[in-house]
Amino acid sequence: MSPALGFLSICFLSVALFATPAWADDAPAAGAEETVVVVEEAPADEAAVSRSDELAYAIDNMMLMICAVLVLFMQAGFAMLEAGLNSGKNTVNILFKNVMDLSVGVLLFFVVGFGLMYPGDDFAGGLFGFGGWHEGTMTISDEAAAIGPGNFSPQVDFLFQVAFAATAATIVSGAVAGRMRFGAYLVYSAFLTGLIYPISGMWTWGGGVLAAMGFADFAGSVIVHAVGGFAGLAGAIVLGPRLGRFINGKSRPMPGHNLTFAALGVFILWVGWYGFNPGSQLAFSTAADINATVLVATNTTLAPAAGSVLAMLVGWLLFKKPDLTMALNGALAGLVGITANCNQVSNISAVAIGAVAGILVVAGIVLLDKLRIDDPVGAWPVHGLCGVWGGMATAIFGTDGASLGVQALGSLMLCGWAFGTMFVLFSVLKVLGILRVSAEDEQAGLDLSEHGMHAYPPGVIAAETFSSTSVGAPASKETVGV
Amino acid sequence: MSPALGFLSICFLSVALFATPAWADDAPAAGAEETVVVVEEAPADEAAVSRSDELAYAIDNMMLMICAVLVLFMQAGFAMLEAGLNSGKNTVNILFKNVMDLSVGVLLFFVVGFGLMYPGDDFAGGLFGFGGWHEGTMTISDEAAAIGPGNFSPQVDFLFQVAFAATAATIVSGAVAGRMRFGAYLVYSAFLTGLIYPISGMWTWGGGVLAAMGFADFAGSVIVHAVGGFAGLAGAIVLGPRLGRFINGKSRPMPGHNLTFAALGVFILWVGWYGFNPGSQLAFSTAADINATVLVATNTTLAPAAGSVLAMLVGWLLFKKPDLTMALNGALAGLVGITANCNQVSNISAVAIGAVAGILVVAGIVLLDKLRIDDPVGAWPVHGLCGVWGGMATAIFGTDGASLGVQALGSLMLCGWAFGTMFVLFSVLKVLGILRVSAEDEQAGLDLSEHGMHAYPPGVIAAETFSSTSVGAPASKETVGV
Amino acid sequence: MSPALGFLSICFLSVALFATPAWADDAPAAGAEETVVVVEEAPADEAAVSRSDELAYAIDNMMLMICAVLVLFMQAGFAMLEAGLNSGKNTVNILFKNVMDLSVGVLLFFVVGFGLMYPGDDFAGGLFGFGGWHEGTMTISDEAAAIGPGNFSPQVDFLFQVAFAATAATIVSGAVAGRMRFGAYLVYSAFLTGLIYPISGMWTWGGGVLAAMGFADFAGSVIVHAVGGFAGLAGAIVLGPRLGRFINGKSRPMPGHNLTFAALGVFILWVGWYGFNPGSQLAFSTAADINATVLVATNTTLAPAAGSVLAMLVGWLLFKKPDLTMALNGALAGLVGITANCNQVSNISAVAIGAVAGILVVAGIVLLDKLRIDDPVGAWPVHGLCGVWGGMATAIFGTDGASLGVQALGSLMLCGWAFGTMFVLFSVLKVLGILRVSAEDEQAGLDLSEHGMHAYPPGVIAAETFSSTSVGAPASKETVGV
Repeated sequence: MSPALGFLSICFLSVALFATPAWADDAPAAGAEETVVVVEEAPADEAAVSRSDELAYAIDNMMLMICAVLVLFMQAGFAMLEAGLNSGKNTVNILFKNVMDLSVGVLLFFVVGFGLMYPGDDFAGGLFGFGGWHEGTMTISDEAAAIGPGNFSPQVDFLFQVAFAATAATIVSGAVAGRMRFGAYLVYSAFLTGLIYPISGMWTWGGGVLAAMGFADFAGSVIVHAVGGFAGLAGAIVLGPRLGRFINGKSRPMPGHNLTFAALGVFILWVGWYGFNPGSQLAFSTAADINATVLVATNTTLAPAAGSVLAMLVGWLLFKKPDLTMALNGALAGLVGITANCNQVSNISAVAIGAVAGILVVAGIVLLDKLRIDDPVGAWPVHGLCGVWGGMATAIFGTDGASLGVQALGSLMLCGWAFGTMFVLFSVLKVLGILRVSAEDEQAGLDLSEHGMHAYPPGVIAAETFSSTSVGAPASKETVGV
Repeated sequence: MSPALGFLSICFLSVALFATPAWADDAPAAGAEETVVVVEEAPADEAAVSRSDELAYAIDNMMLMICAVLVLFMQAGFAMLEAGLNSGKNTVNILFKNVMDLSVGVLLFFVVGFGLMYPGDDFAGGLFGFGGWHEGTMTISDEAAAIGPGNFSPQVDFLFQVAFAATAATIVSGAVAGRMRFGAYLVYSAFLTGLIYPISGMWTWGGGVLAAMGFADFAGSVIVHAVGGFAGLAGAIVLGPRLGRFINGKSRPMPGHNLTFAALGVFILWVGWYGFNPGSQLAFSTAADINATVLVATNTTLAPAAGSVLAMLVGWLLFKKPDLTMALNGALAGLVGITANCNQVSNISAVAIGAVAGILVVAGIVLLDKLRIDDPVGAWPVHGLCGVWGGMATAIFGTDGASLGVQALGSLMLCGWAFGTMFVLFSVLKVLGILRVSAEDEQAGLDLSEHGMHAYPPGVIAAETFSSTSVGAPASKETVGV
Repeated sequence: MSPALGFLSICFLSVALFATPAWADDAPAAGAEETVVVVEEAPADEAAVSRSDELAYAIDNMMLMICAVLVLFMQAGFAMLEAGLNSGKNTVNILFKNVMDLSVGVLLFFVVGFGLMYPGDDFAGGLFGFGGWHEGTMTISDEAAAIGPGNFSPQVDFLFQVAFAATAATIVSGAVAGRMRFGAYLVYSAFLTGLIYPISGMWTWGGGVLAAMGFADFAGSVIVHAVGGFAGLAGAIVLGPRLGRFINGKSRPMPGHNLTFAALGVFILWVGWYGFNPGSQLAFSTAADINATVLVATNTTLAPAAGSVLAMLVGWLLFKKPDLTMALNGALAGLVGITANCNQVSNISAVAIGAVAGILVVAGIVLLDKLRIDDPVGAWPVHGLCGVWGGMATAIFGTDGASLGVQALGSLMLCGWAFGTMFVLFSVLKVLGILRVSAEDEQAGLDLSEHGMHAYPPGVIAAETFSSTSVGAPASKETVGV
């Protein structure tokens, strides 16, 4: 109960902080009103141009809002994928974590994260800065954006960025499934979206040190996905494997309880990625920008297609049968791999990048299995490994002259930051004795022990006698990266 | 069979009515053609301005269409949420009701509802008016819209409005789940989308009596959600509780059969709400309008996040464990609460409104339980109670000067209308003996008794031995509002 | 394993073919750069007009991208629908086929299909042409589109078209479920998206022989859906029925394992259709075009609503109880029926077209059952039969003067082509002995025999004792077209 109380206090603290009489004054419509003034000023001398700029502004902001909605839809995809690939006795826990990654993530990114990630020109340039809390109360600027192509309302800017932060957080959820306490997960989730991700995100997208070095990562193969993947790896290592996952040094499969949900999750993620990547163009109202945006969308289609086919083929060769989870893996791997470079590679390169990602992800799953690291949904192979691949591919296939050395250094910094800080956080929670549930609770399932409820009728849960009736698949099967 | 035959006759009647030789003539493309003329007229004297207006018109209509699609997607969310939160033996029935809420709703709103809700200037102004049936045949005007910012084709206007009507209808479905006859539900659904919702909808949005009083409800916290929630409450009261829900005055939980579907439903509803609220701005092509639209979208994100976290915390304190269904509840409560006022509150106010809604919804669930009213999915706490809260919050937090008294009066009128008319309708159906299934049929499940089929293999249904193996959660658990 | 190796070789062949040093040069951004030049040229003399054209170009390309995303989302709908309507022991196989329809489809349409379907003016005009492989390396033109209303980047054009190709392929998946070998399905899928669909697609949309004849099919009732439906019929006939589907000449129902997934699939498909039909307007930036687009969207709502209600009523009369799968059928039938003509019929005609489709689909299901053809999800009744109805309805209800004779002839050519070529392909695979799994494998389920894994825990699968505990529904029940 103590984590809940902790949260309660943070929450009331925040509300108290904000609950000033300034509420009514500091006026949500302020921006809009100023905007109207700008427009009203113009017509006399240069009506046509100003009206064009206003239409461009409408197009840009509308499109970014739609892309943000697609990225937010990815939360449903992650929830379905992770739930489907784990045991039915841990489903409530997994769904709950995904809901909270979004809800806690939105609140903390609003209060601190957004200000850390986009500190403004006065604060940026290095490793850390904070320019949020305008007038001491809120992190979303209430200055209206200048009307014109490629400018965005701070509101939609926040919406798009917070969706990315929630994505980074939720990647970890799958890697630590089945044994972490719910309260500990909430603490992790708050740290990642409030501090860890925004700080390293600033290094590139907020005008920080990596931006100065020329590190290129269009939509976040490394900045979002590898950060999430390596944070998950830290969690998986500190927690240790689920009971029964490795017995006497032998790997034993723990298949998911519903591959229909898992496949649905991948389809939803694929669709949501059309917001993630095309939206990252951040400008849609000139012919050049819209051409770039739709190139991004097509590359975001070709890469997962190639990844899925290659992962299926490699799995087929390795395991003798075509394995659905490998194909799902491969599609996600292709999506992660193309994310950094989809704006600057040709269609054929997109196929190649996706194909390599599809091979890498299978290799990564086998590698974790050999190392006896239990990452139940393959979060590291998909997001960590293929995220780094995406960063490297930007130098190899890209046409904007990114340097392989800078890409490697940037990836190292970002992955090291995520892995290091999270390793410390998870270790502290472990020392405090609040990281992992007891063996009995794990056996009973987190749904019952942590939440006192089942996701399905008890009779159906009871029918899930995993251990005794396993199909005998290799341990790497039934594993998909989240 | 008699309700089916009744529907058949309504249907053929409608078709017969419309089946005039005028079909071919009254020309779907008429609007388009006239429109072309308008455009062709212009270029000579004021080409640039006219072209800008045309682009603005394209932006406005495109965005409203996209928002309408998002609202229609909410039907999938309601279906998943309600199905997941009820027994597996009633799943076909619930899914069927949701499909029919949309299908019957679209047809009846087309034939009468749209004309009732938007009667036009000649008819509006009071409590009732009807301006539809243009030229005696159809309800969607075939006059082309004037080209310009903020104007909409009657076609997309209808599409957006019909999606709202179907939403109001489907809210009730969850409240009456598990014991109402399918035919009776079809009668209810037709009444709500064809008459009850359009008439009260006109009071505000069609230029009626509440609009004249200054009642403010941006996207329908009260007009759509509270109307649906109080209609559902009437149904729950007239029907009485499901067998076994309250035994010897003691509340017994009847948990849902699949919380993964329930959580998926909430994620889909959250995403769909980005059409519901931002679309209600009804203008997207000026800088002021698009700024307002994206403010709406961000507030629609902050409120459910706060609602979800607060509902989790309150549930944790009350029930000793974090309860997923409370968090899902809270997210929906935050969405409902922000719907009326998302256009005129600051981001911080959105957090506060959502947080209060998250607390209210848990209180509402506990209250219904104490009153021994069986609302299987918590439709009233989420949509009824938090809908009214949204209306009140508009006066408390809003910056457009809405009066608390007017908001209270308007909410009273709308909820009274919905509860009163629906109480009468359900009572009439009860007196006619066609409202509730027999005790044997209820025990067997509505899927078998009403539809002669199961949603899942019989063996799986049989494994759902709810009563004997209940986890022992309090009755208010496993309940989420729809 | 041999089909896998075959695929592997195709894959490496393609990669080898493309892996020329030209990669880096042939520059994804080339189009964008040229585009910029065009824009930069203009401002001096006619700034206002050129900027308007650029904004129009942005609107058109953005909207087509969004519509393409919605069409791609339909893949999730097909997967859920087909999985839900089949046995739980074949779920992995069905999901896998759907993932591969998209992935293999994207790659083959990229390599050959797109060039076959849109051969360009030099090659089109007849029954076959190929204008792809620009400069010997890729099929998506790298020429920038001219800036202006109604023009599209080749990238987004490809994206929209490939989504259609994948849709045609995935329709077949349901018709052949439960008994086809996975490798054989991959071969089919590659042929359909790479050759069969693009060639006949070119006849109308690529400027071929049907276009010259005046055949009208706005968004593909016949070109996409009937082609898929008749290809599926060929598969169902060549394969023969599933074991136990018809015993001693009597039809026995084989109900789906999860109607919640099936209903979710239909809701997703309905939503995705708002990309399929409105997107087919292929121009959104003039008032006339956007008016036409939203008319299409509203007709795409009215027709499935009518189809769903009528199919429910007819099923209710025939089977004595309202059958959910018939209503789901009917919604899809209405969507398929309106697809060819939604741009040129009135709202009332849309209701009529959908209503007739709702009746036809039930008749089609009964007919296949009488003919002892096993189409597990009703792919032919929904897509084949109602696809042809959509083509005919274009002449009956349309206002653009399509000839009933031409519509009939075109439908005959398209359906004959799909059925004929696929009948030959499936027959060749049958003769080679790689079409159908063995009786033992079929009994064990394709998931275990073809993929070595289950979609659900073995205990849950075991609880699905279909044959002995059937509810006793007529064979036509639990069948929905995909």
